This record gives sequence, C-alpha cells and structure tokens, in this order.
Amino acid sequence: MPISAYIKETMSNKSAGVIRKMFEEGLKLKAQYGEDNVFDFSLGNPDLDPPEKVTDALKKCAADESKNIHGYMPNAGYKFCRDAMAKKTSLEQGVEISGDCVVMAVGAAGALNAVFKAVLNPGDNVIVPSPFFTEYRHYVKNYQGELIEVPAAADCSIDTEAIKNSLNEKTAAVLINSPNNPTGRVYSQANIEQLCKVLEEHGNKCGRKPYLILDEPYRAIVYDGTKVPAAFPLYDSSVVVTSFAKNISIPGERIGYVCVNPACPDKDDFVSAVIFCTRVLGFVNAPALFQRVVAESYDAPCDYSLYKKRRDELMEILDEAGIKHLVPEGAFYMWCKAPDCFNNDDMAFCDYLKKYMILGAPGSSFGGKGWFRLAYCVSEKTILNSRKAFIQAMNDLK
Amino acid sequence: MPISAYIKETMSNKSAGVIRKMFEEGLKLKAQYGEDNVFDFSLGNPDLDPPEKVTDALKKCAADESKNIHGYMPNAGYKFCRDAMAKKTSLEQGVEISGDCVVMAVGAAGALNAVFKAVLNPGDNVIVPSPFFTEYRHYVKNYQGELIEVPAAADCSIDTEAIKNSLNEKTAAVLINSPNNPTGRVYSQANIEQLCKVLEEHGNKCGRKPYLILDEPYRAIVYDGTKVPAAFPLYDSSVVVTSFAKNISIPGERIGYVCVNPACPDKDDFVSAVIFCTRVLGFVNAPALFQRVVAESYDAPCDYSLYKKRRDELMEILDEAGIKHLVPEGAFYMWCKAPDCFNNDDMAFCDYLKKYMILGAPGSSFGGKGWFRLAYCVSEKTILNSRKAFIQAMNDLK
Repeated sequence: MPISAYIKETMSNKSAGVIRKMFEEGLKLKAQYGEDNVFDFSLGNPDLDPPEKVTDALKKCAADESKNIHGYMPNAGYKFCRDAMAKKTSLEQGVEISGDCVVMAVGAAGALNAVFKAVLNPGDNVIVPSPFFTEYRHYVKNYQGELIEVPAAADCSIDTEAIKNSLNEKTAAVLINSPNNPTGRVYSQANIEQLCKVLEEHGNKCGRKPYLILDEPYRAIVYDGTKVPAAFPLYDSSVVVTSFAKNISIPGERIGYVCVNPACPDKDDFVSAVIFCTRVLGFVNAPALFQRVVAESYDAPCDYSLYKKRRDELMEILDEAGIKHLVPEGAFYMWCKAPDCFNNDDMAFCDYLKKYMILGAPGSSFGGKGWFRLAYCVSEKTILNSRKAFIQAMNDLK
Repeated sequence: MPISAYIKETMSNKSAGVIRKMFEEGLKLKAQYGEDNVFDFSLGNPDLDPPEKVTDALKKCAADESKNIHGYMPNAGYKFCRDAMAKKTSLEQGVEISGDCVVMAVGAAGALNAVFKAVLNPGDNVIVPSPFFTEYRHYVKNYQGELIEVPAAADCSIDTEAIKNSLNEKTAAVLINSPNNPTGRVYSQANIEQLCKVLEEHGNKCGRKPYLILDEPYRAIVYDGTKVPAAFPLYDSSVVVTSFAKNISIPGERIGYVCVNPACPDKDDFVSAVIFCTRVLGFVNAPALFQRVVAESYDAPCDYSLYKKRRDELMEILDEAGIKHLVPEGAFYMWCKAPDCFNNDDMAFCDYLKKYMILGAPGSSFGGKGWFRLAYCVSEKTILNSRKAFIQAMNDLK
C-alpha cells in the first residue's frame, strides 16, 4: 500500500517545501549551535508579540465557560464574528459590507483552498504575477487547476499588459498579494485600476469574468506612509482572503476569512459554495475560540515600527555586504539578488549561505529564479548579529 | 464567473448537507419558538461540558505569553504534543508508539482529508460499511476517489464476507468508524479480527494491501462495559484518525490527529505524505493553542454516564411511541427505523417529524435508506420534553 503516486512525486521535487525544510533545519541548528549563532530568515513567522488587546481577549474568551462555547457553530462561522470581519473589510475596501459576505476560514491558506475548490473547474487556470507565494502552486493544483505565472514588471509591480495577454476563457481567477510575499511590493492605485480595467474588458469580450482574488494578510504592515489601495470599488467580482497570522502574530492559530465584494453578481452562490467547500474539505469551521478572540480584538492598535527598524538595519547590512535587494514597502520580506557568480542558481547560493549559518529561501520556489527571500520578522539581535556572516560570506566569494 | 459546475451540482442535491441544514434550521426554530419547544436531535454537537482538567489547561495555556507561543511550529505539530498523542494511542492500541507516528490535524475531518490526499490515486476506491458518516462521500471524492458502500450485517456489524467480495486492486483503504456514527454499534474483537484477516489475505493475493483507517472520535464513549478492540496488533497497515471533538466536547476547536501503526511497512513515507498534505491543503497545522491544551489534558477523567442516562430515556420514549431502534453500545446516536407507512422514505418521515418540532437526520444521507438518526447528545430536558411530540407524531399516523 504505497502512498499516492502524485504525492510521492511532488514530495521528491527538491524545491517542494524548501522553505518549511529550512525552517525545520533552522530549529535543529539553533538547538545545536545556540539561538544566537543561527541567522534564520527562512519563514514568515512573526517575531512581534500579539497586541495586548488580543491577549486580553484571549484570556477572557478562554475563561468563558458558557454552554457550548467550544461546540459547532454554522460552518460559515459565528454571526457576530462574520459581522465584525465585514466591518473591518468595509473600512479597508471603502464599501458597505454585511456579515453575509464573510466566511470564516482556517487561516488565509484554508480560505484560498475553499475559494479555489468553489470556483475551479478541472482545467481552469489562475493567473498570478510572479514571483509569488510558493504554496499557491499546490492550492490551485489541489483542484485540478493550472497556475499561470506571469512575470511582474522589473520593479515587481503587476505587468497588466502581460496579464491581459495571458487571460483566456479558462481563466477562473487572477490572484494578487499586496503587500507582496516575497517582494515587499505594494501595488499602487494606478496599477490596480489598470488591472481591473483589463479584467473588465476581458470579461466583456469573452463572457467569463475572472474573479480577482486579493490575498491580503499583510495589508496592515506597510512603511513610509504607503497605502494599500481598495479594489472592491473598482471591480465587482473581487474577493478578499486574509488572516490574522501576520498582523497580530498568531499564524499557528489558523484564523482567517473570505470576504466577497457585496457587488459581486454571483455573491450568494459564491458564499454558499465557499461555506460548502469549507465543510467538505474537512476544515468544518474556523477554530471557535479564535473567532471570538478576533471578533473582539481585530482593531487592536499595532505598532509595526519595529519591523521598519529591522528592515532598515537589514538593508544597511546587505548594502555593506554588496547584496542587491528591493526596498520593501510592506510585509516583512526582503527580495534579494543572488550574486552574479552564482549564475542565477539561487538554490546553490542559499546552500552557500547556510555554511555561514544564514537561512534564506531560494527564489526559484517563488518563481523568481536568481533571487532569494529574507524574512526579517526576526529579532533585532538576529539581524545585527548576521552582519559579520553576510560580509564574510560575500568576501569569501572574491 | 459562475462557481465550479461540480460544486454547483453537488450543492443542489437535496441530501447534500441535510444534517447541517437541519442544525441551522434548528437554531432558527429555537430563536423563534424558544429553546424548550424545539427537539433538535440533528447534529453530534456534544452537550456535556468539557472536563475541568481541559478548561483549566485552556486557561493556563491562554495566559502563557511566551515568545512565539501562537507562531508556526513544524507542520506535523509540536513534538511534545505528538509525543502525548502517541502515549494516548499506545494505551488504546496496546502497542508501543512514538511521536513520529503522529501528525496533528484540524479535527478528524481534517485528518481524514490529509490521509485521503496522501494515499489516493485518481480512480482508487475506499470501502466503507454502510450506513456511515455522510461526509466520507465528499472526503473521498475530493481526491478523485470512489467511496464503495458495503452494507453492514443486519445487526450493523461489519459484513466481512461482503467486504471481501468488494476488495479489488483499486482499493486504497477500508474505513471503519467504531463506535459507529450513525448506528452506535461497536465492532467486536471477533469482527475486527475477521476483517483484518480478510485484508491480509487480499493484500497477499493482489499485492496491494489496503490501509485500514480507524476513525475513532467516539472511542471513549461506550456503555454497559463495552470495549473498543485494538486493531494495530492485528493489521500492520492501519491508521487511527481521531479528534477531541466528541470525548471532551470541543468540536468547534478543530483539534485531532493521525497516528499510523508503527509496524506499517510504509510508515515513514506515510507520515511524510500526511504532513505534506496537511500543509498543501491549507490546514498548515492544527491550532497551536489547542495542541497545548490537549497535550496537557488528553487524559482528563470523563463521565459519560449522563449520555447513557439520556440514551436510556430516549429509548424508553421511542419504545413507548412505537419507533424501532438499535441499542447503541457507544457514541451518542440512536439509529431508528422510519414507520412502515413511509415506505422507506426517511426524508419524508424527517419532514413529518419537523411538524412536531422534532429534528432528526434522514438515514439516506448515511447510506441507510428507511432509517433516521437521532443524536442524543442534547440536554435531558430536551429528551424528556420530546416525549409528547414523539407520541403525538406516531399517534397521528394511525
């Protein structure tokens, strides 16, 4: 009784799960060499503590012993929680949204899976600007869909002309992630407007309007006054999928949601389908306790200035070491170029960095060959201590 | 941009999600007519409070503000939690098990989905004695598998001869659920031994040994000294999937696990595949907080005598009303026969009962045409108050 042939093959692919492998290797290295001697930039596991309002809400909800408080609720989630998420998304998207547009989910990953299962027919495609969050490949493939990677512009904004040329009658959705993982890019208002125009025109022409899926777990984490534009007012067939993993630092708790544009022509069908898929995929519902927690504390004041400080410190180190990188406008990822002497072999360069106890994620797994990602949601100490290692690693190349 | 054609079709099937629809209808009816006037036996949403050891552990874990306590951990779960689940399963299965046989999951439903994705090739089949938990259909279909329903014996034990005749080279797994939902049957030691013998012989003959998947969320809930036999010592290619939903009444929190038999020839591949599938299906990991909670409190003493009392009270009422039923040996479901005058139309009878404010689940959705399921994990008051309604409903048929 061997395991599934497809899973066996996928798992044997060297780049499959390379980030998670790095993370688990990092845990082992830290145990072996000490926390301070390993510079683990592999995973987007936020280092900031959850805000006090969140931990207070958690303590309060955990102490609540009302009847059935940990029981099943409707698969879509508690009504009060859906209403709270609608209120939050209304503020972000600038349109009035009611709770019946929201389905609570097991993190943004669970949300994306429920959405893809809901909308994809076998053979349909999903278009994503590349580089992109590496797990999208699996999420789309889970439902016999095809992920079409469309290279971003040189500045990592969306190349809307290239998207336009890739759209076809099999396109079920275009998926964007802003602030972006792995590039830190925040797509501008003009860029989003142009994308929506392209989608609208394609829909009119081909009769099938793709959903615009907005994967926004990093929406709140922006720097230097950057703003994440709203897409709901621009394109009706749009959907937000998001989580509380990154903005309030609780990725292990698996709490997120789907919110469909109230103007979406298929709104009711879409919501019913996402609820159904949440159920039959075995999520059943988002964890009950954390639904209560986020309903009470989603508007907790957060201070991301520490991430900005770390970003600036890391940029200074990379500049000193001679590693080229983008300037992140949001999220907590630095998108860096492997040195020329590695001939775009980012896997080899990440292996090389490992010798200096630096763990980064190879760009190939994000569809960004020749690049690598450093997640700087780590302690300031890790960043400052990594200076010598980066400089030594680059000097040894000379 | 309509939703997926398959999802649309599946959702339009009247029996799809009928139990969940009943549950949600029950919530509305209760809001309208008052809690005391609706007899909602639709869903296995446990009425007992979680044991004190569990709620104490929850409060303690929620108050823990250690660094990264809500962060990502390895996709398989915390090591200490996997070790605790291994210890628990060792006691249940009577064989020594280590933590590396365990993968933490988002409830038993999440566990089953990860396992099916891990083992099913498109076109493979999974054999289940029917009646069976209705969601299995979707879980197997999610991975292009086929669920083969093999009618149980008249007493709802496993008809091992019928299973034998259904096994073929496409059989990836046989799935059993004991104590059983919806029948309350606990398979005997002899029944399990016979099944394992059949599987072993089939494996030897055809060269493909099916996994025996033991779905055991009700293992602890048994009556009258009934024991749930261990299958690990009898068949090496066996796997437990389970959760803490039913035994400690926290179904909304989505915490469960997969534990593979340490003697399984494919053990390492199997565990890696389940971890991988947990990740790529978007579960990512079982909720962090409840991993801590169950690691501390999985052995909480539980008293199920209240369920036994309710079982007995409900049986008395049904006997008085003239509704035939099985005597449940475990779990908290009563498997009842629709009156003859309904000609095996259990949907029609459940609709009829609704007029008397009684909500039950039609047997057809469990593959048990002509029967219906009453979940008696409800308050004693609900059961006692339902007496008049059952008797009236049956009298009005005369």
